[in-house]
Amino acid sequence: MAVISLTTDFGLQDEYVGVMKGVILAAAPASRIVDLCHGIEPHNVVQAAFMIEAAFRHFPPESLHLLVVDPGVGGKRRILFAEAGGHRFICPDNGLLTRIAQTAGLGPIREIANRRLFSPRISATFHGRDIMAPAAAFVARGGDPAQLGDEISGDAIVRLKNGVPQMGADGRLRGLVVSIDRFGNLITNIGRDLLDRWLRDNPKQLFQIDIGGQLTTHLHDAYEEALPGQTLAILGSRQTLEIAVNQGSARDRYQVDTGCAVTALRLTAPGHTSQV
Amino acid sequence: MAVISLTTDFGLQDEYVGVMKGVILAAAPASRIVDLCHGIEPHNVVQAAFMIEAAFRHFPPESLHLLVVDPGVGGKRRILFAEAGGHRFICPDNGLLTRIAQTAGLGPIREIANRRLFSPRISATFHGRDIMAPAAAFVARGGDPAQLGDEISGDAIVRLKNGVPQMGADGRLRGLVVSIDRFGNLITNIGRDLLDRWLRDNPKQLFQIDIGGQLTTHLHDAYEEALPGQTLAILGSRQTLEIAVNQGSARDRYQVDTGCAVTALRLTAPGHTSQV
Amino acid sequence: MAVISLTTDFGLQDEYVGVMKGVILAAAPASRIVDLCHGIEPHNVVQAAFMIEAAFRHFPPESLHLLVVDPGVGGKRRILFAEAGGHRFICPDNGLLTRIAQTAGLGPIREIANRRLFSPRISATFHGRDIMAPAAAFVARGGDPAQLGDEISGDAIVRLKNGVPQMGADGRLRGLVVSIDRFGNLITNIGRDLLDRWLRDNPKQLFQIDIGGQLTTHLHDAYEEALPGQTLAILGSRQTLEIAVNQGSARDRYQVDTGCAVTALRLTAPGHTSQV
Repeated sequence: MAVISLTTDFGLQDEYVGVMKGVILAAAPASRIVDLCHGIEPHNVVQAAFMIEAAFRHFPPESLHLLVVDPGVGGKRRILFAEAGGHRFICPDNGLLTRIAQTAGLGPIREIANRRLFSPRISATFHGRDIMAPAAAFVARGGDPAQLGDEISGDAIVRLKNGVPQMGADGRLRGLVVSIDRFGNLITNIGRDLLDRWLRDNPKQLFQIDIGGQLTTHLHDAYEEALPGQTLAILGSRQTLEIAVNQGSARDRYQVDTGCAVTALRLTAPGHTSQV
Repeated sequence: MAVISLTTDFGLQDEYVGVMKGVILAAAPASRIVDLCHGIEPHNVVQAAFMIEAAFRHFPPESLHLLVVDPGVGGKRRILFAEAGGHRFICPDNGLLTRIAQTAGLGPIREIANRRLFSPRISATFHGRDIMAPAAAFVARGGDPAQLGDEISGDAIVRLKNGVPQMGADGRLRGLVVSIDRFGNLITNIGRDLLDRWLRDNPKQLFQIDIGGQLTTHLHDAYEEALPGQTLAILGSRQTLEIAVNQGSARDRYQVDTGCAVTALRLTAPGHTSQV
Repeated sequence: MAVISLTTDFGLQDEYVGVMKGVILAAAPASRIVDLCHGIEPHNVVQAAFMIEAAFRHFPPESLHLLVVDPGVGGKRRILFAEAGGHRFICPDNGLLTRIAQTAGLGPIREIANRRLFSPRISATFHGRDIMAPAAAFVARGGDPAQLGDEISGDAIVRLKNGVPQMGADGRLRGLVVSIDRFGNLITNIGRDLLDRWLRDNPKQLFQIDIGGQLTTHLHDAYEEALPGQTLAILGSRQTLEIAVNQGSARDRYQVDTGCAVTALRLTAPGHTSQV
């Protein structure tokens, strides 16, 4: 029984996700369909690219991950089938595989182009239902990926230009808030390895973070280490830096949206810091 | 393994949907339960009737569709079992089958009345759990529908009076916004056939749409054909007319709710139109 | 095929629930995972404790219910495995089992402590994924609960102190609004038995309810018994007292939140009541 995970920006208020499941079950009745997340912000490819990279390894090997964040639907963008890290992926060619390529490396990539595998009538607005779900069902029931379409070079696919955190020559660590979760935690794209390297040069583990205004905080190991209502930085469940408020909401406190820049600054003058 | 789709106005914030699944799995452990949609606006039977008609054909043949939009729960309305288009339906008798009857035709209909199939204790407020889910499980595990209750005439069930789009003698095409999706697209009940017929008399494919105020637009084949921020009309994934804003939200722009009238007007004086 | 229900305060906007499912399917591929509810208010243990008690009996016997409402994640609170009423439960030790203990009685309880069953890397912020989901998968595939950890006394686990409705010496029945559902119904923790007992002393079935201000109402058997827009009290689907507005929202009318006190008063001077 192949596991198929679904990640979209459809939300759950409409029938779109349910209809994709109907299409998959009609063609691949034994598949196990799992909602990974349908709360991606509309058209937020960066958010989805980081989410799927953080999540896919938790699924069974050989899982097929269907990603439908597709602002270019109905236009000329390609649809891809890719393999990476022992998993398989189907998604539009708009950068969704950027992070997976960085951490797992991409295996063979194909452009899904075999119209005989698609729904007989292809809408202009819902290729998740009419192309990607049928292609996923074809693969899930053991179809040969070579039939999906021709192999293309990994260099030819779209890669996100923003969204890559960086350690600057000025000693600053720069990233983005890529998701804000239900608890109001600000989830950045600054991963454990980069953070560890940066912290080696900043051994006091006291650092300033600039998200609009500046805050100075410690890196904590658990929410409970901070006082209730206190801001903290923590290595979150994605193994990336998160800004949180213990028993509160960092989103409410700092009034930021996804895409907000996060800069970790060396703490040069400890005497002048103010603890948030 | 019978597929059972669920469509309700329960939302997902409460336990109602999960409990219905528990009831079904307790009685029919091998059934495959798929959420079609739980975001129907509370008590919006028109919305659900159009959604299920647009969706059910995407599911495997013989699927059972359980529809719980039930403002009359606990009162005297009947509960129905119906067959249509090779699928099966269980729902309260309040018009939910209106659109399916129009496009697929209804086969035999039964009133679900056999209390031996219900839960031992029937609440006044949740017949989805106490009557409809047990009836669905009974059918899913191969029970004979004749045991659900007596056959009743298709003429005897409730039909929606509004919600049917019409081409007027004045040449105007009148319909409704029946759903507004997560992207802010205004989904009307004006289907492809009616639209094609109307467009034959309006060969320029430039038409005015009245949703409160008037807008003049083209029918486009893809969102990308319009400029970013431009309003467009498009044949949406349900094969009905949608009003959209490319990379934006028509709901936010026009501030309309479901139920809003949509009228397509012949364009008599092209010189006076203003492109939105 | 073991059924595993999931109840969390994660919401569905993030990947957290989907990732837990991936972890479970990777270790116990044959398990049937059912979302009971992910709309628990963040950190609202009282709400979850009442919800799971009202819901678990609707699932198949031997179901495993995984409850992740865990404000103390990463701190010193224990994680429990318990049996009750022929079902099994895994949750943090923070009071979530309080109501089940009252109505079903708790069987053996174990502290989940066997790190060999956990994920290799345990985050500080997501024990649902790293400890509870792997433990659930272990039990679901037939693992011996004794391997989870040592048995502990039922007296040693955390019990909620608030959240228990009471009949006072003054004849007043006191409880709480524990949930407000999508329809705006105020769901209290005042159960059928307690309500029946109280109503025996108040045979007119006309009573005053104090939720901030006072309202006087009848207990109705169906929403339809009240006029549209009228407030009513009803025995809801959990078999507890609910305050509702027929075809409207009690939440909107009374502007209350969960945690609001509900007091049923004897009606001493019927001539002075005002029907809402």
